[in-house]
Amino acid sequence: MSFDPATLVYDANGLIPCIAQQEGTGEVLMMAWMNADAVARTLETGRVTYWSRSRQAFWVKGETSGHTQALVDLRVDCDRDCLLAVVRQEGPACHTNRRSCFYTSVTGETETELMSPMV
Amino acid sequence: MSFDPATLVYDANGLIPCIAQQEGTGEVLMMAWMNADAVARTLETGRVTYWSRSRQAFWVKGETSGHTQALVDLRVDCDRDCLLAVVRQEGPACHTNRRSCFYTSVTGETETELMSPMV
Repeated sequence: MSFDPATLVYDANGLIPCIAQQEGTGEVLMMAWMNADAVARTLETGRVTYWSRSRQAFWVKGETSGHTQALVDLRVDCDRDCLLAVVRQEGPACHTNRRSCFYTSVTGETETELMSPMV
Repeated sequence: MSFDPATLVYDANGLIPCIAQQEGTGEVLMMAWMNADAVARTLETGRVTYWSRSRQAFWVKGETSGHTQALVDLRVDCDRDCLLAVVRQEGPACHTNRRSCFYTSVTGETETELMSPMV
């Protein structure tokens, strides 16, 4: 029996969060959202495909920027309401041109930028 | 000026997703939700504190199970609508007693369990 994306748990907008993690280094690159069709497309094509909430359209990661995410492994959590995509990220994952979207460290006192845009 | 959790972007329920990642190994352990008060408590106490959507109460990770998460670093993403907590996880992070909640690998064909409960 093939895997059915309908067996995942989606929110009121029909979306499930997906964390992207770099294969090998374990670096957490970004988090974005998928709907059931985006999950199916990701599995079918091997190219990580999100659902853009702002554009209300499929978002094949890197399609315009070239900063693609090749799927290595897709994992679902115990509650089936969150995904982890292990990927091979080409270049920066973040739209700010940084490798990861999580480049700001927060303490009770202040925020510190941990990484610079890639050149 | 101290960091103000109100500067983060919360969803319609006042929540922001927080990914927990093990320091050193980079293993993604779980994803859960925080509200602004949970963010503040996490930073103040150094113990990762979520907001339980099912119980509608603060959830100090490991308070009952002993499987605590000591905060090493809290990071906010470029859109300020997702958090990454780098932690020192004591024992399993998952309620199924597995180290990580992401223990199931999905392909177009099937699901495969990648890890067993800890003993």
